[in-house]
Amino acid sequence: MPNKKKNTSALTEKNGVAPPETLNQKVVRQLQKSRNKPILIEHLVSEILKENQAALSQAITIIESTAQKHQQQAKKLIESCLPFANNSIRIGITGVPGVGKSTFIERFGKLLISQGKKVAILTVDPSSSISKGSILGDKTRMEDLVKEKNAYIRPSASGDTLGGVARKTRETIILCEAAGFDVILIETVGVGQSETAVHSMTDFFLLLKLAGAGDELQGIKRGIMEMADSIVINKADGDNLKAAKLAKTEFNRALHLYPEKESGWAPKTLLCSALKNDGIAEIWDVISKYFESVKANGYFQHKRRNQNKFWLMQTVDSRLKMDFYENPSVKKELELQLKALDENKTTPFEAAEKLLKLK
Amino acid sequence: MPNKKKNTSALTEKNGVAPPETLNQKVVRQLQKSRNKPILIEHLVSEILKENQAALSQAITIIESTAQKHQQQAKKLIESCLPFANNSIRIGITGVPGVGKSTFIERFGKLLISQGKKVAILTVDPSSSISKGSILGDKTRMEDLVKEKNAYIRPSASGDTLGGVARKTRETIILCEAAGFDVILIETVGVGQSETAVHSMTDFFLLLKLAGAGDELQGIKRGIMEMADSIVINKADGDNLKAAKLAKTEFNRALHLYPEKESGWAPKTLLCSALKNDGIAEIWDVISKYFESVKANGYFQHKRRNQNKFWLMQTVDSRLKMDFYENPSVKKELELQLKALDENKTTPFEAAEKLLKLK
Repeated sequence: MPNKKKNTSALTEKNGVAPPETLNQKVVRQLQKSRNKPILIEHLVSEILKENQAALSQAITIIESTAQKHQQQAKKLIESCLPFANNSIRIGITGVPGVGKSTFIERFGKLLISQGKKVAILTVDPSSSISKGSILGDKTRMEDLVKEKNAYIRPSASGDTLGGVARKTRETIILCEAAGFDVILIETVGVGQSETAVHSMTDFFLLLKLAGAGDELQGIKRGIMEMADSIVINKADGDNLKAAKLAKTEFNRALHLYPEKESGWAPKTLLCSALKNDGIAEIWDVISKYFESVKANGYFQHKRRNQNKFWLMQTVDSRLKMDFYENPSVKKELELQLKALDENKTTPFEAAEKLLKLK
Repeated sequence: MPNKKKNTSALTEKNGVAPPETLNQKVVRQLQKSRNKPILIEHLVSEILKENQAALSQAITIIESTAQKHQQQAKKLIESCLPFANNSIRIGITGVPGVGKSTFIERFGKLLISQGKKVAILTVDPSSSISKGSILGDKTRMEDLVKEKNAYIRPSASGDTLGGVARKTRETIILCEAAGFDVILIETVGVGQSETAVHSMTDFFLLLKLAGAGDELQGIKRGIMEMADSIVINKADGDNLKAAKLAKTEFNRALHLYPEKESGWAPKTLLCSALKNDGIAEIWDVISKYFESVKANGYFQHKRRNQNKFWLMQTVDSRLKMDFYENPSVKKELELQLKALDENKTTPFEAAEKLLKLK
């Protein structure tokens, strides 16, 4: 067989990389099958409550679906899972690309699992709609974690609007909690608006940084430092250690200039080397102390209540706007008013009143 | 006469301070009278166009009024003045209390007046509703400027909402422009949300700073530096000069790390001592260069158009929300939904949908 011979030649090129084993063929088949037969939501919920990850994935897919037929199913799913939700701690993790988020989450996740916890990792990145469907993107970045049966990794909830992404992520949290996950890590990229969204759905907000002058201006959105409950300087190893220690001092100084947080918590700066698995346990210690403190002083419950209220208002506001601007007569009048504005024939306030009369 | 004798005694105490001359009694009387007789808007407009400052003040008072009977008059005023507006340059000036804004504006204003310009100074401070009515507050801080016939100082537009304050200020700008002012300076305090509002109604945004490590975190709201078209370090004199020069270098370095501005303008850091009247002319040079550049590349017109659009949308959005939440059945349902949220019986998104059904 000439083919066999060719394959043993020194000049042979390898075939394309096979699909990684981490791609659960069973889930894929289940999902494919599920598209052709009616889904029994009751069954799905009972499987989620049995901590069946394949069922969890299927449920999240329904929630993420924009298809009309899935809306009612999604609603039923959430309603059924709600009584079993709200028992996890939710940690937001952000940092610019290159800061080592995946390695950090992998180490951090493994530590939690070694303590008997179940850890779900979700990512929020509204800008990454191009990578939509690339289910393996993030999973392959966390090679060790993905093999753990007590870890669940679900990459980028995608959507056209931040509101849409936020909704899907918030609902995914509920499903994960119903599926018995104790810790939900929500990763975001640190350069867009998604941090505010993630901050508004997590209990603790961790900012990963690198040592280096001016880093706080290099890409990281201003205002994010103010949200942080802890700043972790990653890659604090080897030649970098000295700079990292210096950065720690500087960040601590900067953090002290901010007004006190409503939580009563004083944000802490920590060093770690995710690569060398150094300093991870100390970070978990700090986070544990935070949760002790805010559960004791009532801030934990208070914040979750406020977050609920925030998302309720956000949803109402964006729908009010959408409904208004999609009205054809508003669309038409808006064009006329913008033209009049450009010609200084009206003021923005007069123009707004004319538009509002069409409501 | 015993009284006369007493007055010449060395022990005599002065009487209380008389109302400052800067309080124009004629205007006060006019305003008082105007409350009792119908105002002729046509007359007011023609006086404004004749650059009559008393008429301008009266018109601004009508615009600032919350009384129902003034709304229609305000509308007519604006409509009549609009064709004569839009011919000034609008400069926003911000900085934390103590940075020397009043002294700076006084020197800067006098320089412009010495060049034959007419300068109007408005302040925006939504938080200062307590000082509402204290018409002299800001005027007495600018003793020299207030005597100039080509200067017009109008303190704090006040109001319950930032939107309300913004509207009044924007409309006041139109009246000032119709009254022949070439330069409108809009001052704000640098610690609240008003900077974003002022930034959205001015062509050039100047940030006043003091030398000193960590100053950028001491009270000044993050994000303001990003808005600045120029940073001016005030009090660069005497012992402070060295620190000011150092700060200039640091700010310049920091500014260069930001992405390029849409205007194509590279923000500049400058030193000045308002107290010693040092460096003021250089600041005006830089501002003049800015206006040359943005008028040439079209950004000036582009920005004003976008600002108009921004305020149109802002006004619509806030009215949509107000109308919705003031609906009694929404109010009632909102209470129920918030309670359900607190008890984890619904999600923010479900709750929002229930509310929106009442629209």
